[in-house]
Amino acid sequence: MNVNGKHYRTIWVSETDPRTVQIIDQRALPHRLVIEDLATVSHVAIAIKEMHVRGAGLIGATAGYGMYLAALEACEQSSFEEHLEECGRALKATRPTAVNLAWAVDRQITAISAGKTSAEKVAIALRTATEIAEEDAAFCRSIGAHGVELIRQLSQKKNGAPVNVLTHCNAGWLAFVDYGSATGPIYAAHDQGIAVHVWVDETRPRSQGAKLTAWELGMHGVPHTLIADNTGGHLMQHGLVDLVIVGTDRTTRTGDVANKIGTYLKALAAKDNGVPFYVALPSSSFDWTMRDGLLEIPIEERGSEEVKYADGLSDGQHVEVLVAPKESPAANYGFDITPSRLVTGLITERGICAATEAGITSLFPQMR
Amino acid sequence: MNVNGKHYRTIWVSETDPRTVQIIDQRALPHRLVIEDLATVSHVAIAIKEMHVRGAGLIGATAGYGMYLAALEACEQSSFEEHLEECGRALKATRPTAVNLAWAVDRQITAISAGKTSAEKVAIALRTATEIAEEDAAFCRSIGAHGVELIRQLSQKKNGAPVNVLTHCNAGWLAFVDYGSATGPIYAAHDQGIAVHVWVDETRPRSQGAKLTAWELGMHGVPHTLIADNTGGHLMQHGLVDLVIVGTDRTTRTGDVANKIGTYLKALAAKDNGVPFYVALPSSSFDWTMRDGLLEIPIEERGSEEVKYADGLSDGQHVEVLVAPKESPAANYGFDITPSRLVTGLITERGICAATEAGITSLFPQMR
Repeated sequence: MNVNGKHYRTIWVSETDPRTVQIIDQRALPHRLVIEDLATVSHVAIAIKEMHVRGAGLIGATAGYGMYLAALEACEQSSFEEHLEECGRALKATRPTAVNLAWAVDRQITAISAGKTSAEKVAIALRTATEIAEEDAAFCRSIGAHGVELIRQLSQKKNGAPVNVLTHCNAGWLAFVDYGSATGPIYAAHDQGIAVHVWVDETRPRSQGAKLTAWELGMHGVPHTLIADNTGGHLMQHGLVDLVIVGTDRTTRTGDVANKIGTYLKALAAKDNGVPFYVALPSSSFDWTMRDGLLEIPIEERGSEEVKYADGLSDGQHVEVLVAPKESPAANYGFDITPSRLVTGLITERGICAATEAGITSLFPQMR
Repeated sequence: MNVNGKHYRTIWVSETDPRTVQIIDQRALPHRLVIEDLATVSHVAIAIKEMHVRGAGLIGATAGYGMYLAALEACEQSSFEEHLEECGRALKATRPTAVNLAWAVDRQITAISAGKTSAEKVAIALRTATEIAEEDAAFCRSIGAHGVELIRQLSQKKNGAPVNVLTHCNAGWLAFVDYGSATGPIYAAHDQGIAVHVWVDETRPRSQGAKLTAWELGMHGVPHTLIADNTGGHLMQHGLVDLVIVGTDRTTRTGDVANKIGTYLKALAAKDNGVPFYVALPSSSFDWTMRDGLLEIPIEERGSEEVKYADGLSDGQHVEVLVAPKESPAANYGFDITPSRLVTGLITERGICAATEAGITSLFPQMR
């Protein structure tokens, strides 16, 4: 997508050094656009763990490129395979909830194993990383093409008045390689001239809504309004939300959705007010091995300082402020599970389906 | 309640100057304890509007003392009654949602009208302000005595394991004159040796949970954990919340509850997970004229800067940081309505009742 008129993706191989991967360091947004070089696997692991990059698709794509760097490093090790496996384990350990991470690492290990020489393995690793990234962008584009029809229908029902979409956290292009999952339909609608307005949940404690979603919507010229996470229910009670679209870090084959903490509360409010609640995801975010999200999906716990502090710009400087008493403990669960019964439908690269095993496997019959 | 071992209320008449009212300026908490002098009605209006004081009961008590200052000022005006009415209107206009505000102003105007001389009117005004404050503290004490039985029952069911109570915003002693409504039962349980632990919702955008509730619980030694507003649903899904208790700024005679924005979302999650959801309130927070909270209770909209900025301590200084893109608009609704169907019961100074007109008027038969 565009940043001040220039096209960016969230990750790419450096034009000047093919052994270096470059990312947008999302910790500096919305105040500064910082490009960061990643030249080693351990640097990639830190970038994922410390959330220089985040979001289901982008974590997968970054892990894919990380395994390319692992293959480069492996050429200088006594056992190519051992080093690769070790790097794969290290990358998988960085974030527990997003399934795209393990999916990308495993896809790379399988692909690379077909190579006969080290040079061939490296070439396969780069090709596979590129494929993962290209697929991710293409999938989000398709999600946009399918999801825009929901917005178009609502727009017609409203005689062209702006369709109000609520979203939580950032499942925008910054969470993927390009376009975004939840934002895919929104960008498509905006680009096709359908009037759309987005309620952006701030998404404490890391404020990805305020910092990332508001920024990328603004950069693309999409009308939006930032709100505290507490606000969505009130808006829905007053008819001010026509549609909810969120992303997911992992969705079971039965349609249970892990997404940023707080998603479940919005799904409950949508149900209570008859507002359609959609989850947009590329198929790489399905966990085909799981049937019960609440019991099976691991929920990441992060440091309490993210809750006790807020950070932002003061006098041109990036400053962290203590919001709570220094002595008070805090808990920081990263995700929650929205049970499939609260999900109106899933928007995938192959179309829209019910959040049920039958619905999902009707689009992905090979997974039956 | 105690602050570092010394007993405080939230508002009182200065010991050295009976024409000055003193408050804790809550904007400086939890980092500094600042006592502020209020010597004029316009200063009182600013203190309410700018939230030096806040919370249903304390807004009422402050308005009560404000009308005492109004009576003092009125002695020097050509028309005592006109000045009093004018001050009452000004105070009522400061915050639209809390019903205690209008209730206290009207009570003062009625009481003062019985005075024959200016001196008598001033004496009545002081006595009535004191009565309102004393009643508020006594009501919260009674709410605690009734509500603690709910916690005791849960404690017995859990064989003495800590009872986990979730609360939203601050309906603590800082929101009243003393004890607090939602915290009344919690302090009573703690003081009686019943193990209790409180999940404290941060409560963006003004973070009254992080800044006030966590602080006052900590000062009283009550175990608590701060969480982002997004977290409560996840905790309830995992059996980590035994009871929700919140306050209210206005409750209709039919049991619809206006409280800090986001309360409705927690009520939905409590319902979905079979967690009892109680609202604690003194009878001064009932609006006996209203039957439909969603249609009738006015919802305050505040400035967008509260959403776009966060404030706290950095290097010993109170600093405000911009969290979102400077250009992004933000909306800031202060309250939402929890429909009575989601409320397990109301804890009042007269006992616990169903959130229905029949339940409420069984405790307050004079309002039938």
